[in-house]
Amino acid sequence: MSVRRSLIVVSNRGPVTYARDAEGMRVERRGGGGLVTALRGLVHHHDVTWIASATTDEDRVVAAEGSGDGVVLVAHDAAAYDGYYNTIANPLLWFVQHSLWALGTRPELDEATHRAWNDGYVRVNRAFADAVVAQLDNTPDATVFFHDYHLYLAPAFVREARPDATLAHFVHIPWPSDWSALPEEWRRAVHTGLLSNDLVGFHTQRWARNFLRTCDDVLGPGPRPRVAHHAISVDPAEFEELAASDAVLEREARLVATRPERLIVRVDRTDPSKNIVRGFHAFALLLERHAEWHGRVSMLALLDPSRERVPEYVAYREEIERAVRAVNERFGRPGWQPVDLRIEDDFLQSVAAYKQYDVLLVNAVYDGMNLVAKEGPLVNAREGVLVLSENTGAHDELGGWAIGVSPFDVLGQAEALHAALSMDVAERRRRAEALREHVRGNDAARWLRGLLDDVDGVST
Amino acid sequence: MSVRRSLIVVSNRGPVTYARDAEGMRVERRGGGGLVTALRGLVHHHDVTWIASATTDEDRVVAAEGSGDGVVLVAHDAAAYDGYYNTIANPLLWFVQHSLWALGTRPELDEATHRAWNDGYVRVNRAFADAVVAQLDNTPDATVFFHDYHLYLAPAFVREARPDATLAHFVHIPWPSDWSALPEEWRRAVHTGLLSNDLVGFHTQRWARNFLRTCDDVLGPGPRPRVAHHAISVDPAEFEELAASDAVLEREARLVATRPERLIVRVDRTDPSKNIVRGFHAFALLLERHAEWHGRVSMLALLDPSRERVPEYVAYREEIERAVRAVNERFGRPGWQPVDLRIEDDFLQSVAAYKQYDVLLVNAVYDGMNLVAKEGPLVNAREGVLVLSENTGAHDELGGWAIGVSPFDVLGQAEALHAALSMDVAERRRRAEALREHVRGNDAARWLRGLLDDVDGVST
Repeated sequence: MSVRRSLIVVSNRGPVTYARDAEGMRVERRGGGGLVTALRGLVHHHDVTWIASATTDEDRVVAAEGSGDGVVLVAHDAAAYDGYYNTIANPLLWFVQHSLWALGTRPELDEATHRAWNDGYVRVNRAFADAVVAQLDNTPDATVFFHDYHLYLAPAFVREARPDATLAHFVHIPWPSDWSALPEEWRRAVHTGLLSNDLVGFHTQRWARNFLRTCDDVLGPGPRPRVAHHAISVDPAEFEELAASDAVLEREARLVATRPERLIVRVDRTDPSKNIVRGFHAFALLLERHAEWHGRVSMLALLDPSRERVPEYVAYREEIERAVRAVNERFGRPGWQPVDLRIEDDFLQSVAAYKQYDVLLVNAVYDGMNLVAKEGPLVNAREGVLVLSENTGAHDELGGWAIGVSPFDVLGQAEALHAALSMDVAERRRRAEALREHVRGNDAARWLRGLLDDVDGVST
Repeated sequence: MSVRRSLIVVSNRGPVTYARDAEGMRVERRGGGGLVTALRGLVHHHDVTWIASATTDEDRVVAAEGSGDGVVLVAHDAAAYDGYYNTIANPLLWFVQHSLWALGTRPELDEATHRAWNDGYVRVNRAFADAVVAQLDNTPDATVFFHDYHLYLAPAFVREARPDATLAHFVHIPWPSDWSALPEEWRRAVHTGLLSNDLVGFHTQRWARNFLRTCDDVLGPGPRPRVAHHAISVDPAEFEELAASDAVLEREARLVATRPERLIVRVDRTDPSKNIVRGFHAFALLLERHAEWHGRVSMLALLDPSRERVPEYVAYREEIERAVRAVNERFGRPGWQPVDLRIEDDFLQSVAAYKQYDVLLVNAVYDGMNLVAKEGPLVNAREGVLVLSENTGAHDELGGWAIGVSPFDVLGQAEALHAALSMDVAERRRRAEALREHVRGNDAARWLRGLLDDVDGVST
C-alpha cells in the first residue's frame, strides 16, 4: 500500500480529550467534528504526532506531564485562548469567510477585538508554533500539517525558526473573494502565514481560486506555494455500519411510527451559515403556494446547538425558534405539525433521519464542503432527493444529481422542495443511486491520499 | 478643442425635472446628484439627447408631449417603477455592491422580490431600451452612454435590436468580487447586459478588476468589451465660487461663532454604506482614550436624509440618532456638546463646514468614489486633515495625503482622529496643498475627456 510517513498534525481540537471518571481515573474521549474524524485514519498508517489545544482540566494535566502517545496538548493562557477562540476565530474569521457580516454595522473592531488579536490569536498561534518546533527537534523529517482557520499565523512562525521544514495547511471553510473586513495588518498576517507553507489545500477549485486572487490583492505578486483542492468526505463503511446499529434502528422505528407521507429533513449546527431560518420560510412558502401538501408533508429539523457563548449564535437560535413557531401557528392543525424542531446533540437521531428523508434540504449560505450532503445519500432508504445550495463545496461534486438552489432565493427553494416532492420515482432512484455511488467512490481515505500525494510532491 | 460628438446619455435621473408653479406655469428644476452634475458639462460641447425616467406628474405630461429640448423622459408604469427602484435597485443591488447584507438572514428573495425583478427591473430596463432604439432611429450615429446600476439590462436589449450601435456603460458604485447573493439567472442577466456594451467604465482599477473576475465566474471565458477606469471628480471653479457665495459665508459665520477649538466634520447621506454609526463610536473612543480633547473638539455631522421609504434606511437613521445620544450623554457637559448632528438637506451648510474642518472624516464601508473627499480639501481654509477609508475609490488617488483607515476598525479610526488632531501645521499644510492641487488638476472635465476618448476608441 502507500508509504509510511512521518507527520505532525496540528489542529485546534485533537483526536482525544481527557477527563476523570467517578473513581478519579483518567479516561480518554474521542474528539468530535468532521475534521478529526476524517484525519483519524492517518494514525493507523503513518507515524503521527498530533498537536492540539488542551481543552479540559485533565488535558492540562496531560499537557504538564509532557503528553505522549502521539498526542501533544498545548495548554494556553485562559484569557488568550478565549480571545483567540471566542472573538477572533468565532465569530470574526468564521463570519468573514462565510460572508455573514452586515458590514454596514458589524464587525466593530474595538479595543477588545484588538486585544483578542494581539494577546489571543497571535499568542496562541505562537504557542502552537513553539510546540511544532519542539516536535521537529524530535522528528526533523516530519511534514507539518496545519488545519483550518484557527492557525493561519503559525506557519510563518515555524518557517522563521525552521526554514527547511515541509509545511502544509488545509483550510476546511470557504475562502472568500474579499478580505477587506480585516484591517490591512491582520489580512497581511493571515495571507503571509498561509504563504509560508509549501502546500495550501482547500475543498474546491472555487476556494482555491479565491485564495490566489486575494493573495494578489493583499500582498501583490510574488512566489506562491502549491495550491491544491481535494474534497473532504466521509467513511462509508463506518457510516453504513452505524446506520444498521441497534441505536439507530431504534430511533428510526420511532420516526417511522410518527412520520407523515413525505418527510423533509435538515441536519445542521445552529449556525447562521447554515441558513436555517430561510429554510423554514421556504417551507412556509411551499405550503402557501401548494396546498396539496398540507397534512402530507412535514419538515424535521435536527439542530446541534453551536457556539452558545457567542452572542450572534444566541440571537440566531432565537430567530430559528421564532420562525418555527410562525410556520406551525400559521399552517398547523390537529394531527399535523408542519415543522418538528429538535435542538439537541444526537448524531444517531440524525442518521435515523437520513434513512427516512424524502427530501434532504442543505441550503447553506456558504459552506466549505457540507458533509450532510454526503452522509444523507449514503444511507437513505427512500430514494430521497437532495436539495443543495450552490454555495456549498459539495455542490461542485454533487450538483448534477441534486436540485441546486440559491441560498438567498426563498421562492426558488420553495419551488425546489415542490419539485423534489413531486419527482417521479425512476428519476429519484437514478439520482439517489448516482449520489451514493459517487460518495462511496470518493471517500475520506481518497481525500487523504490526494493530499498526501501533494505533500510528497513538495517534500524536500 | 475636442471634437463635437453625438451622444445619447441614459440614466435613471435626468438633468431636469418639471413641475408647475403657483400660477400653473411649467417650471424646470435642475436635477441633483454627483452623476448629473458631472455629466452636465457634456451638454455644452456635444449634441446630447438625455433619456431619463419621468419622476414627477409634470414630467409625465412632458413625456406624453414627446419630450424635446434634448431630454426624453420615459413614463414608466408606477408599480413597475416602484419594484425597479425601491426593491431591486435599492436596497438589493446597492446592498450587494456595497457588501451591506448580513447574508445569514438577508436578503430574502421572496415572491415580491421576484415580481419586482420580472415586472419591475426587467420591464423598466426594457422601456429604457425601447426609448434608446427610438432615439437611435433619429440619430443613428450617436453613441449610447448608459449610467449606473439601474440600467444593467438595457444594453443587451438595445444590442439585440441594433447590433451595430456603439454602447458604453459607466458604473458609479463599487463592483464587488462576489455576485452570488443574486440567483444565477439574475447575475447572468446583469453580466450579460454589461457585456453587451463596447466599453464598460468604473472609477478605479479595483472595481474594474473585480468586474473582469466576476465575468469569468458568472459567464465563463469569452469576448470582453473594453474595460476602463476613470475617477469621477468635481468642478473646482464652480465649487470655489460657491464657497465664496453670500449664502455660504453667512452659514460659515454662524459656524465660526459657535465652533470649538477643533472641529471634526462629516458630510454624508444617511446610508449604511457611509458608516456613520461606527464614526460616532470611533469619536467616543477618541474621547475615552484621549481625555485632553474633552471640551476642545466636537464632531459636526451633516447628513442628508436618504431613501426614507426603504426600511433598512429608516432603521439606520434610528441607529444614528441613538449613537449620537449615547456619545453626548456620556461625555457632554455644560458648554460642550461632543456631537452636533444635523439631518437635513442643506448643501450650502456642507460647503461652509468644508471650509471650517480641522479633520474631515470619510470612513465609508465601500464607496465607488466619494466626492466629499474631493470637495472638502478643495475649499478648506484650515489646513484640515482628511481621514479616509481604504474602501473608497477616492483612496486610490488621495490615500498618500490622507490618513487611511479600515472602515471596520473603530480603534484604528479613533487613533487616526487623534493623529489628525495632533498633526503639526507644516505637515498638515503639505498634505492639504497636495490634496487641493490633485483635485484641481483632476477635475470632472478631465474624467469626461478620458471617458470620451475611450468611447472614440470603440466607436465604429
